[in-house]
Amino acid sequence: MQQPILIGVDGGGSRCRVRARFADGTPIGEAEGGSANIFSDLDLALHNILSVTREALAQGGLGEEDLGRCHAGLGLAGANIPSLAEELASRPLPFARRAIETDAVVACRGAHADADGAIAILGTGTAYVRRTGKNFTSIGGWGFALSDQGGGGYLGRAALVAALLAHDGIGPASELIRLVLDRFDGDAARLVEFGGEARPVDFGGFAPLVMDGADDGDPVAMAIVAEGLFHVVAALTRLLALGAPSIVLLGGLAARYRPRLPATLQPYIGEARGDALDGALALAATLADGKRP
Amino acid sequence: MQQPILIGVDGGGSRCRVRARFADGTPIGEAEGGSANIFSDLDLALHNILSVTREALAQGGLGEEDLGRCHAGLGLAGANIPSLAEELASRPLPFARRAIETDAVVACRGAHADADGAIAILGTGTAYVRRTGKNFTSIGGWGFALSDQGGGGYLGRAALVAALLAHDGIGPASELIRLVLDRFDGDAARLVEFGGEARPVDFGGFAPLVMDGADDGDPVAMAIVAEGLFHVVAALTRLLALGAPSIVLLGGLAARYRPRLPATLQPYIGEARGDALDGALALAATLADGKRP
Repeated sequence: MQQPILIGVDGGGSRCRVRARFADGTPIGEAEGGSANIFSDLDLALHNILSVTREALAQGGLGEEDLGRCHAGLGLAGANIPSLAEELASRPLPFARRAIETDAVVACRGAHADADGAIAILGTGTAYVRRTGKNFTSIGGWGFALSDQGGGGYLGRAALVAALLAHDGIGPASELIRLVLDRFDGDAARLVEFGGEARPVDFGGFAPLVMDGADDGDPVAMAIVAEGLFHVVAALTRLLALGAPSIVLLGGLAARYRPRLPATLQPYIGEARGDALDGALALAATLADGKRP
Repeated sequence: MQQPILIGVDGGGSRCRVRARFADGTPIGEAEGGSANIFSDLDLALHNILSVTREALAQGGLGEEDLGRCHAGLGLAGANIPSLAEELASRPLPFARRAIETDAVVACRGAHADADGAIAILGTGTAYVRRTGKNFTSIGGWGFALSDQGGGGYLGRAALVAALLAHDGIGPASELIRLVLDRFDGDAARLVEFGGEARPVDFGGFAPLVMDGADDGDPVAMAIVAEGLFHVVAALTRLLALGAPSIVLLGGLAARYRPRLPATLQPYIGEARGDALDGALALAATLADGKRP
């Protein structure tokens, strides 16, 4: 009998990554493709997951006929929304079995090599997970409309808001404000049009400007980062209160926030022992082991 | 020759109102209908404007053949967005002439009987206008994504954000939080689903809870209202700095904010001498007078 194939999927708003290996650990392939955001487009997400999976399998000389022996661990942003999870469960996928968790939960599995611990994802959005045995406690990660405090989308949007306030003579001007308005040729109406259509990742494009500004002592940038940091520190503190022995910081803003954390938190920050795809593969392994019904 | 008809339109996200009168002041009729939000649906907005206009004309026994002698003053939310204004200008309307300003500008005309002054619209959104002669200076009113600080949508969304933070053990709990979560049967995921689809007016449905909570000393509600008030006071102060002799507060939250304003601002708060439809008619009159090309 052929051995099972494990498929690890890390799917988020900007891209979908897949790593495939045999149950005995032999690597098969790894590929990357477009968005797997089940919140904004479930059909597109499933399409991308499958096409990236096929690509990863093809790297190891495997094809369509092997999908049926795949055990897929799917880490998907939005999987914590019950209606989406239900909708997802009802859709056919050609895999032998599948298990679904949020992208944050599989990232936590990966960062701690499937052992206990906690993570903070500080990227376009923000999300926090504390694992104790089989229990995963999620904090934040509720999406841009009501959550994501301190994430790149949040910082970038705050910069645009500050630019409008300055434009209206209400808020303070600064070099950051000038740089932001310059991106719209100084035209506030164009900034507003951008803001009305922007996705979190589009707002996030301004986050580096904000972080750089804060490093350079720009007062508006410092105020925006201070507010983001306040939220990040509150969430990290909550993870420690839940008993987390160490917290791994992940995401594009991890390196920007880490030196800003108070000294009391620094000793608890750990290094990742694996990535989200390792975590998704660990989830897939629970299927192949028969540990999970 | 038949005398011109003046049509005043006040169009916003939740409804469109029209008042019709003859150029000599004789009333014709007044009607109300669905949304005239050119930002979200220009075709629907134009359709509603025309059907409500027909209804107002019909009240005075006028009909389709009279549209051609109508001079329409349109006060429309979103008219300050250049791309929308262009699109709107390119669409045919059966009126003799038309002039378009934002809903906030016509409200300022109306509140001060077409004389100089300033207004603050404190409704689902917030917007401020200072008029000096032919110059209208707008502050805020850039829409929910980046502006509207202190408005009902803003306060309501802040309450949902606070409820999620409390749910996650990060933010403080309070009676307000309990009332908000109760609306979703205590299910944070349902709150998130609501928040992901909610329009500003949907978030605004929670604003009365927030204002009532602040009146009752609820600490979370007080913090949310204090932040909104900070923005309102900053904008009112800016209007005074621009030389406004008095400011009329309009919108559903005007009565809730007024007693909260600092004593230094109270002497500048005035009473409205007319409504937004009066202002739209004053705009229409500039067309009939031939004052405006």
